[in-house]
Amino acid sequence: IMLTSGFKELGTQIGLELQDRIRDVADKGGMKIVGPNCLGVVNPQVNLNATFGVELGLINPGSVAVAAQSGAVSQYIADALTSNNVGISKFISMGNRCNLYFDEILEYLAQDEQTRVIVMYIEGLERPRQFMSVAKQVARRKPILVYKAGRNEKLNQASLSHTGALAGNYELYKAVFTQTGIIAINSMTELVDVTKALAFQPPSSGNRVAVLSGGAGPGIIMADKCHELGLSLAEFSPATLRQLRQLISPLNPVDNPVDLAWVSGNFDACRQVLKVVIED
Amino acid sequence: IMLTSGFKELGTQIGLELQDRIRDVADKGGMKIVGPNCLGVVNPQVNLNATFGVELGLINPGSVAVAAQSGAVSQYIADALTSNNVGISKFISMGNRCNLYFDEILEYLAQDEQTRVIVMYIEGLERPRQFMSVAKQVARRKPILVYKAGRNEKLNQASLSHTGALAGNYELYKAVFTQTGIIAINSMTELVDVTKALAFQPPSSGNRVAVLSGGAGPGIIMADKCHELGLSLAEFSPATLRQLRQLISPLNPVDNPVDLAWVSGNFDACRQVLKVVIED
Repeated sequence: IMLTSGFKELGTQIGLELQDRIRDVADKGGMKIVGPNCLGVVNPQVNLNATFGVELGLINPGSVAVAAQSGAVSQYIADALTSNNVGISKFISMGNRCNLYFDEILEYLAQDEQTRVIVMYIEGLERPRQFMSVAKQVARRKPILVYKAGRNEKLNQASLSHTGALAGNYELYKAVFTQTGIIAINSMTELVDVTKALAFQPPSSGNRVAVLSGGAGPGIIMADKCHELGLSLAEFSPATLRQLRQLISPLNPVDNPVDLAWVSGNFDACRQVLKVVIED
Repeated sequence: IMLTSGFKELGTQIGLELQDRIRDVADKGGMKIVGPNCLGVVNPQVNLNATFGVELGLINPGSVAVAAQSGAVSQYIADALTSNNVGISKFISMGNRCNLYFDEILEYLAQDEQTRVIVMYIEGLERPRQFMSVAKQVARRKPILVYKAGRNEKLNQASLSHTGALAGNYELYKAVFTQTGIIAINSMTELVDVTKALAFQPPSSGNRVAVLSGGAGPGIIMADKCHELGLSLAEFSPATLRQLRQLISPLNPVDNPVDLAWVSGNFDACRQVLKVVIED
């Protein structure tokens, strides 16, 4: 693990040469390097914090693996997941990826028993074909979430000019991700939300959704979003509707979305409503 | 102000008839009704909290007017703006809009001296043509942000079937909003962020942006988002680049986005960097 900076990321000839020399030495000895110019590695299961971030020792063990090219972004993801009570299996800040590539990390995480969900922040891929080929296999068994940064042509040039394997057009990346079974993520908030859902919930067996809300307006907003995302609001049976009317209010119109209205502050009533809806 | 529920929102014949009777009485007397089935009205400038939400008395006075059809959503917006130190000029929970319509509220807020930014949550419009016509005039002087809910055909039917003036297709609404000069909002987070920017910042005189970040990765993410939204990253002058290199690090590659790197924890250095960038 090489935390040290001053290599390829400088964009200078000497930085590039130094990194090439390190890579040659490592390759000769059959050694893989995490970094240089990285934050390091954390394995919460064995209390290992091999980073320069003391607070990363506070990560809880769990089922989500995080591999990121940027130290600041990987730290943000770890903080956000921790705040959301999502535990981490392995945390790898990749840095310059001297001789260790995202496809190799993916292969490792695929066979790691602690890891159920794989989250990656990628600016550029040295070996895009290998990555997609490995991802295609792994995505069948474990969900892979990727935030691809450097979407702008200009910003992409630096990381892709020497591979030329994929154009710097994010739409192209996104299409390839979708074909490969990778979940393409568009914001850090979305990354945390989707990761949380995948870490805590069993896979969905359908697209029918019930929306429960403490107010009518928020319920309508959620119903709209479900519709936009191809989910459909389940139609409750007459028996369910009767029970909901009794539990909530005979005066309130009761349907899906369920407006909990005046019982929303009553924990017991909410639990009963939830039970009736889940059993439908 | 009628907080009471049990009227049109029930979807029953008797609810509808009761509301019609109230409307007729009010109309005859030349009286406008906020509600029924609403949260009420707040005017923080005069410490008026005419709602059934005690905590709405904690809203700070400011320049943002909030008019919303849903009590729960209006309360969420008020809470979120307050948490973001954004003050409110007028807060109006509209409820069933018995005989007071969004276009009339818009006319009132247009001439309200305390109001600089207008935020609306709308499920359905009784008089869409009047609304758009008023909005077209007002949007030239004050920004109007609208979150339109009830985007799903099925959910829209109820609120639009009796006017028939606008189809329940959100894409159509969005197109009309854009033509009218209304800012169409797509999530509550976006609503709060855009409101905050408009309340605190002067209008932008161009599309050139400088991005400053404590880490390279987050800077690249922001640069991508600028690109997506039609903003362009300003090109710094050679003099600015020289000064930034001195302030941040002679080793670090310095450009826009600016990676503050190791000086990001140093308040004085950050202030100097900001000064250099703003003066460019």
